[in-house]
Amino acid sequence: MNRVLKGIDNFMKQKSYRIGIDLGGTNIKAGIVDDDQQLIATASNPTKADRPWQEIVADMAETVRQAAAKADISVEACRSVGIGNPGVIDSENGIIVYSNNISWKNIPLAQEFRKHIDLPVHVSNDANCAAMGEVVAGAARGCKNVILLTLGTGVGGGIIINGQVYEGGIGGAELGHATLIAGGKLCTCGRRGCIESYCSATALIREADEALAKHPDSMMAAMKVQAGGMNGKIPFDAAQSGDETAGAVVSQYIEWLAEAVTNYVNIFRPEVVLLSGGVCAQGENLTKPLNEYIRKFAFGGAQTVNTTVKIAQLGNNAGIIGAANFWK
Amino acid sequence: MNRVLKGIDNFMKQKSYRIGIDLGGTNIKAGIVDDDQQLIATASNPTKADRPWQEIVADMAETVRQAAAKADISVEACRSVGIGNPGVIDSENGIIVYSNNISWKNIPLAQEFRKHIDLPVHVSNDANCAAMGEVVAGAARGCKNVILLTLGTGVGGGIIINGQVYEGGIGGAELGHATLIAGGKLCTCGRRGCIESYCSATALIREADEALAKHPDSMMAAMKVQAGGMNGKIPFDAAQSGDETAGAVVSQYIEWLAEAVTNYVNIFRPEVVLLSGGVCAQGENLTKPLNEYIRKFAFGGAQTVNTTVKIAQLGNNAGIIGAANFWK
Repeated sequence: MNRVLKGIDNFMKQKSYRIGIDLGGTNIKAGIVDDDQQLIATASNPTKADRPWQEIVADMAETVRQAAAKADISVEACRSVGIGNPGVIDSENGIIVYSNNISWKNIPLAQEFRKHIDLPVHVSNDANCAAMGEVVAGAARGCKNVILLTLGTGVGGGIIINGQVYEGGIGGAELGHATLIAGGKLCTCGRRGCIESYCSATALIREADEALAKHPDSMMAAMKVQAGGMNGKIPFDAAQSGDETAGAVVSQYIEWLAEAVTNYVNIFRPEVVLLSGGVCAQGENLTKPLNEYIRKFAFGGAQTVNTTVKIAQLGNNAGIIGAANFWK
Repeated sequence: MNRVLKGIDNFMKQKSYRIGIDLGGTNIKAGIVDDDQQLIATASNPTKADRPWQEIVADMAETVRQAAAKADISVEACRSVGIGNPGVIDSENGIIVYSNNISWKNIPLAQEFRKHIDLPVHVSNDANCAAMGEVVAGAARGCKNVILLTLGTGVGGGIIINGQVYEGGIGGAELGHATLIAGGKLCTCGRRGCIESYCSATALIREADEALAKHPDSMMAAMKVQAGGMNGKIPFDAAQSGDETAGAVVSQYIEWLAEAVTNYVNIFRPEVVLLSGGVCAQGENLTKPLNEYIRKFAFGGAQTVNTTVKIAQLGNNAGIIGAANFWK
């Protein structure tokens, strides 16, 4: 039976499992998602990114089979496969145009994957998948227009419009690569002053280290030694203990983030702006000032702003659940 | 016959005219658009923005009747009405939440208009209408994902996604109000450093005047006297005649605009970024450096960028034609 007929057949039988895969630089994670958006089984294997790409794709299929075995279903009972990767994706053709963390360039991922598991495959950016996951099962459940910002080593972004991922052309949704301060700090992308160079965890750590160098009496000094290096939690912890140097770092970081969020409120006027990444452990310490800021500074002010800034809920599972929600 | 039945009736008879209205601070313009997206007749009357809003709405209907008379059709033969206004619009409910140029606040425009002409009415931001007009009949014909930037007194924006206007929530698509240089020049919206405060015609004029004050020997001095004041054309003309002061102003302006355009390429990866407004008379002097810039600095570089920057084609008619293309 060919792929289309099989899809129709599964649909008619109302089989209701879908597969989501998170293809990262370190691990391949796969999960089986049911119609209630529950992740009923997962499996994980190391990516070992250095080997030939065909071997990695074969192991992606193997990881799916392991997850399906745990769920006690056959892979053939599943409707579709979604794959998320933090790269530049040609989602229409299922191609990874460029992915830094696995050093792939123009890899026909969907085509190759189907040699192993013959189901409809959709490939998307991992932040898009995470945004979709939060919409179907997380902090933005039921929302139509949602922006997700992932604050990690870099700043990634996902765009949901009318309940669907906005893929744009090849690439797109690079929400970390719009200017916060044009001509400012050098960004990893080659431009100067992108949001990523001010709002990533990397930027927060850079600012904390610079402040510490100027104010070696800051509480952050001892905390850094104890932690074996600076991290994004230290400035928040020190600030809450009353350390002024850390307080200034945190205030500046929140202001930069507030400017970035206000931009996306003005551009998209979404129902929700979601934040994810390690710094989001700060919870209301982060969302409260951001919500106040957008009501003050977004276009039209409090009268017209009905966006809420929230912390994403599903953590690493968001990407798998979201990837499973592409029907293609 | 009620509105829904009349709509169905018109549809069944395959009547094929739609009405577009451009409600500006100075003039009300109305046009009749046929199925080939031709503007077959137009009419215009002064807005006289100071009077009670109900009178303005009555004159909008009258302007439509004048256009229909010129086209030799009855208003009742038309399928729908679209209205564009440069304000914050609640398009779902047909309400103008706030419009600076006619001093309206929470005006139920669609509801009031239907008292005069009982057809389906859709209200949207004027830049959204212009973007839609260019997609159905202008420089972005047939494109699915398009960004329009209007470079005038301010910087407005329209977003087309999957061939449809993206309305967002109330407001949205305020593409002129994302940061180019956070903390920079004070913007009309109350924030500092928005794209509008660097890329509007107003900003270009400000920069030209400031440069002239520092370099009174610039060619721009005589040109300004002759024109009765600075305008956005003078620095371009003087630069082309070899004036260095003007050349620096133009280079800086184009760089700021290039940064803004690159942002929207990274966020949306659209097929086309359209520019409209007086400064666009510069044509290729503007689009050539912008197209070069995005290929160099957009995320992923020339390999992944398939966006083209173009000048909008339809001028003031874009808004009317676009407004006529909402089916609601």
